[in-house]
Amino acid sequence: MAGSSFGHLFRLTTFGESHGGAVGVVVDGVTPQLELVEQDIQDQLDRRKPGQSFITTPRKEPDTVQILSGIFDGKTTGTPIMLILYNSDADPAAYDEIKGMFRPGHADYTYLKKYGIRDYRGSGRASGRETAGRVAAGAIARKLLARRGVDVLAYTGRAAGVQCEKYMPDQIEHNMLRACDPDAAARMMERIAEIRDRNDSVGGIVECRIRGVDPGLGEPVFDKLDAQLAHAMVSLGAVKGVEFGAGFAAADMTGSEHNDQMVAAGFVTNNAGGIIGGISTGTEIVFRVAVKPVSSIARPQQTVDLNGTERTIKTEGRHDACICPRLVPVVEAMACLVIEDHYKRQAALFA
Amino acid sequence: MAGSSFGHLFRLTTFGESHGGAVGVVVDGVTPQLELVEQDIQDQLDRRKPGQSFITTPRKEPDTVQILSGIFDGKTTGTPIMLILYNSDADPAAYDEIKGMFRPGHADYTYLKKYGIRDYRGSGRASGRETAGRVAAGAIARKLLARRGVDVLAYTGRAAGVQCEKYMPDQIEHNMLRACDPDAAARMMERIAEIRDRNDSVGGIVECRIRGVDPGLGEPVFDKLDAQLAHAMVSLGAVKGVEFGAGFAAADMTGSEHNDQMVAAGFVTNNAGGIIGGISTGTEIVFRVAVKPVSSIARPQQTVDLNGTERTIKTEGRHDACICPRLVPVVEAMACLVIEDHYKRQAALFA
Amino acid sequence: MAGSSFGHLFRLTTFGESHGGAVGVVVDGVTPQLELVEQDIQDQLDRRKPGQSFITTPRKEPDTVQILSGIFDGKTTGTPIMLILYNSDADPAAYDEIKGMFRPGHADYTYLKKYGIRDYRGSGRASGRETAGRVAAGAIARKLLARRGVDVLAYTGRAAGVQCEKYMPDQIEHNMLRACDPDAAARMMERIAEIRDRNDSVGGIVECRIRGVDPGLGEPVFDKLDAQLAHAMVSLGAVKGVEFGAGFAAADMTGSEHNDQMVAAGFVTNNAGGIIGGISTGTEIVFRVAVKPVSSIARPQQTVDLNGTERTIKTEGRHDACICPRLVPVVEAMACLVIEDHYKRQAALFA
Amino acid sequence: MAGSSFGHLFRLTTFGESHGGAVGVVVDGVTPQLELVEQDIQDQLDRRKPGQSFITTPRKEPDTVQILSGIFDGKTTGTPIMLILYNSDADPAAYDEIKGMFRPGHADYTYLKKYGIRDYRGSGRASGRETAGRVAAGAIARKLLARRGVDVLAYTGRAAGVQCEKYMPDQIEHNMLRACDPDAAARMMERIAEIRDRNDSVGGIVECRIRGVDPGLGEPVFDKLDAQLAHAMVSLGAVKGVEFGAGFAAADMTGSEHNDQMVAAGFVTNNAGGIIGGISTGTEIVFRVAVKPVSSIARPQQTVDLNGTERTIKTEGRHDACICPRLVPVVEAMACLVIEDHYKRQAALFA
Repeated sequence: MAGSSFGHLFRLTTFGESHGGAVGVVVDGVTPQLELVEQDIQDQLDRRKPGQSFITTPRKEPDTVQILSGIFDGKTTGTPIMLILYNSDADPAAYDEIKGMFRPGHADYTYLKKYGIRDYRGSGRASGRETAGRVAAGAIARKLLARRGVDVLAYTGRAAGVQCEKYMPDQIEHNMLRACDPDAAARMMERIAEIRDRNDSVGGIVECRIRGVDPGLGEPVFDKLDAQLAHAMVSLGAVKGVEFGAGFAAADMTGSEHNDQMVAAGFVTNNAGGIIGGISTGTEIVFRVAVKPVSSIARPQQTVDLNGTERTIKTEGRHDACICPRLVPVVEAMACLVIEDHYKRQAALFA
Repeated sequence: MAGSSFGHLFRLTTFGESHGGAVGVVVDGVTPQLELVEQDIQDQLDRRKPGQSFITTPRKEPDTVQILSGIFDGKTTGTPIMLILYNSDADPAAYDEIKGMFRPGHADYTYLKKYGIRDYRGSGRASGRETAGRVAAGAIARKLLARRGVDVLAYTGRAAGVQCEKYMPDQIEHNMLRACDPDAAARMMERIAEIRDRNDSVGGIVECRIRGVDPGLGEPVFDKLDAQLAHAMVSLGAVKGVEFGAGFAAADMTGSEHNDQMVAAGFVTNNAGGIIGGISTGTEIVFRVAVKPVSSIARPQQTVDLNGTERTIKTEGRHDACICPRLVPVVEAMACLVIEDHYKRQAALFA
Repeated sequence: MAGSSFGHLFRLTTFGESHGGAVGVVVDGVTPQLELVEQDIQDQLDRRKPGQSFITTPRKEPDTVQILSGIFDGKTTGTPIMLILYNSDADPAAYDEIKGMFRPGHADYTYLKKYGIRDYRGSGRASGRETAGRVAAGAIARKLLARRGVDVLAYTGRAAGVQCEKYMPDQIEHNMLRACDPDAAARMMERIAEIRDRNDSVGGIVECRIRGVDPGLGEPVFDKLDAQLAHAMVSLGAVKGVEFGAGFAAADMTGSEHNDQMVAAGFVTNNAGGIIGGISTGTEIVFRVAVKPVSSIARPQQTVDLNGTERTIKTEGRHDACICPRLVPVVEAMACLVIEDHYKRQAALFA
Repeated sequence: MAGSSFGHLFRLTTFGESHGGAVGVVVDGVTPQLELVEQDIQDQLDRRKPGQSFITTPRKEPDTVQILSGIFDGKTTGTPIMLILYNSDADPAAYDEIKGMFRPGHADYTYLKKYGIRDYRGSGRASGRETAGRVAAGAIARKLLARRGVDVLAYTGRAAGVQCEKYMPDQIEHNMLRACDPDAAARMMERIAEIRDRNDSVGGIVECRIRGVDPGLGEPVFDKLDAQLAHAMVSLGAVKGVEFGAGFAAADMTGSEHNDQMVAAGFVTNNAGGIIGGISTGTEIVFRVAVKPVSSIARPQQTVDLNGTERTIKTEGRHDACICPRLVPVVEAMACLVIEDHYKRQAALFA
């Protein structure tokens, strides 16, 4: 099975490179008769687009989505929905330097090793721009989940070494970091500004909470709900780890500390993060992803060229200093896709 | 797609409950003409079996594997290999208490919510015994990988709050924890003994290193090598998180710290954990999984029964106090399955 | 994806060779809480077993099925159901001749070319015995379909050049051919007896009718209901063709003859065979499969040995003279599997 | 798994309706470094396009393909190739009549029953125009197969009741029917002209021959090469049957007649059609598909409207009188896709 598809019953296939003709997605298996207009999708894409603040890249991407199939009279028909974002023309000369060298932290080397050929323009298929297709597909899943009463919310929980100490969900969209703690967000911005001035970048942690999921969702053994979420999250280029509930902290806990005991009103704690044995408990699903610092930095780094000769490289241009705020809608989109897919699988099991 | 299968080209389907007739696995897509005898598989199963030390459950499981198909004259034929481990008779009376109550930390509640029916005997399908099928299939993948020069090695890196400080691979199979540091292992044992005496259990971290993988393995976009490994690892019931290379520590690093720079001899560092853009770099693949403390503990815990009435439960019997040493061969098996599958996918791409 | 699995949501994986340890099947995705006992499955297997009449092979196969997982308290639990039929010991000396030669009409040559190794005992994996697993899985699907009011009925429509002229469904199980016309069945038996006395075999046509399927089942574009049925049928070793409704006769019809016009009461005709655009119309689904004559015949035939040297071969032993009556339950089983799978897919679409 | 994807390793996903924004296809798993330009694909699309002769519809479709991803410097990169054909604007008023009625032979009724919503413009997703995406993807597979020495050739073998009696492959592209016998083609044209003048249409048989396939291709048990070809062929809306080699004629043959005996030079006959036990023999693969007469005819037919009221309908406009010549490149494309996919599977098996 080729690697650009995801999901079983609600299934997407993305296509496109950063500087080819377009990026986009085909979404198959969408429930018929759902009202869907381009603005539903555009709203989510706008959260991911560049240029939202001084810590994100000021690049202009024509991120205007078009629906080219699967909709009739403003409703889904049950046939594949194709969503496309055309790329604008790029200056090929801009890539003369990276054409022959491997940028540290980027997939330049690995793509060439894998395919023997590489579209070096703007990272090609490995560009973060590929996630636009995921966000677009996720926007459809989000609409279906809203009808089920499921709400998916991600935010920056840590960045540049600064940890959020309060959880204020209403504040998330009101700070440039999409952090859940506006005070922490202010400190994050200060630190990021400093680090960016040193031509460097920072990482962070994005946390996601999913409310309203019915108990009983998830397919043991291999397609556990958390296993699929982990797959979805680590399939994002910047993500280097994922943990559920207490996560890595569970390693140092005892059973009596970690076990979520039950009373008549439900679970007393949620160390499991809302999933036990791969199946949702009905409590909030909570997970976190580790986000590596942005690879493109304008300070000299050691690398080699195509001939293996050692070289120094500086990735000029204005890049994101911290990808977390733009990753937030992508994490949400991937979570929506997994949850919606599992709702369909559960329905099939009992059909 | 039903949830008991894993892999695309090297594909396994497990079956069986803890106290049904048998557990086992069907492995399809195995390279023909590979020499394979039951001992190849038994060797790995023996590493997973209960009763290896005082920290693991002394339960007796007749973990003797039989090959029932796919082998002729001692060699694989390319047809499905069915591996089976029969269950011995259990005393049904032993489950009278848990039959009507949900054990904290176990999948009792979620299975019942999902299926509306539950085989409560020994956790049924959610039993760790299901992983015997994975280990059996992994043993075949391991043989194929050995021919490629790929070596997969896991070990306990942390348990009961004690961290390994040395990496001595030769010592792993010589201590009861399968820890990479024999001194740390001794301290772990002490702490586990104490905690077990308080009728409690501990968690830990299992680390895995994969050497000899060629660069270029992994299928972007969704089937990145790390995404598939994450899926595989989190599909293990006790695993609550996974991280690659620097992992969660990357969240606090800057780009200049995290980027693995290159010189003529290769990558200078390995913060990426051997995978960039979802594709292997050719350096060692390194990941860690967070292992929750064993859920079965013999101290009273709050729970509810099938009617929602609050009850107290004590899971008597001798259980594992720390599952890490028995999880080590399972983590290795899952890693072997993912890597072998990707070798086949890469071959198909260029065929 | 390895080739021994079939279906998407109701999914089976068969394993086993004619003379290995066992043949069987793992069925995943079965609706929970269905009452299921071994006799439900045995009833269908008994219709497929050898030795039912003088035209079928008198070989004794211990076709007694055992359920080894997925059932608790007499009900399905939603976890994989493993069904196994152990093979009895065979005399390896019996295969000394075919070991080195390719039997005409058999997969001996092609298996060796594909795998470079061949289990020559009783055709190995290519044995008709593999279909026992399909029939076993189909018996479960049949029970689920019965609850939906769907009835699947196959029968011999033609054999040894004799065509059924009446459709008497009640007579099907009362003649050795499982023909829908008892008079034609008598003539078929006469001709088959003659041909068998000349050490030869015959082919025929098996027809299948599926009643009670709701309109709207089937997934355009590639997974049309008829496309999946065609896939299922041609995956049977003896089947060389399949046609729906008017089938090949449609090639000579005009549009005005072939189009099924509609009146208030429904479709006037059923040339489409109950499927239009790959989706069920709600009328009876009708298809036919072409069954090749049995390949094993006891008259001398030309072949080559492993060295390419020309040889003469006679497949001695008592073989089926006409496989149609034993294929009838297999065709039904495969049809049940496809229909049940599509019911689940349709439920998922609207979930 | 949603129904608009086909193939395992060489995998396509089509999208689009007749009168939506576009039709097209995403092809994933394409071998990297293959030279590919739009003209390679356009050449095959031109064979499928309308208006090639007086028996095909004179509708103008802007069947100009664009490659929007997956190509760099004129070569495939191994990433998904997206091929798109934009639709031109249609006059919505043209569909006022069919909007409320079910056209006999069309999928109008079944789509509405399935989805509860229907894009009635030009048959929507059920339009033959969807096959443009298949032909486009098939053109890529064809290029890969050419490098392997595999040649796929289809042609009209029968139409309007006239049978080809000669096999002259060089003549196929030189007559309007794409028949393999130019004299038969002339008689076909005469009969079709007569029948079209009576506002009726005709069916036929398309035959396909595949040369150069290595022995050993095909995945028993369920993914037999012929089973996959049958799936592929019956997934074409106009196809009502498929047969391999002797096909339905095998039903009346004896084993001694049907078995393909072997001599040192190879198989003496090819009744199996080049596939035994689901695996290619290395001889020519031969199959035939039954093509139903075109459903759109301009003579009055009985039908019902959305309320179930009986109505008379006449499908005006100029439609194909015989779809066979336009189906020929589609049959070839689907065959190419199946064969290429199996080459990749075979490579993976031995990787």
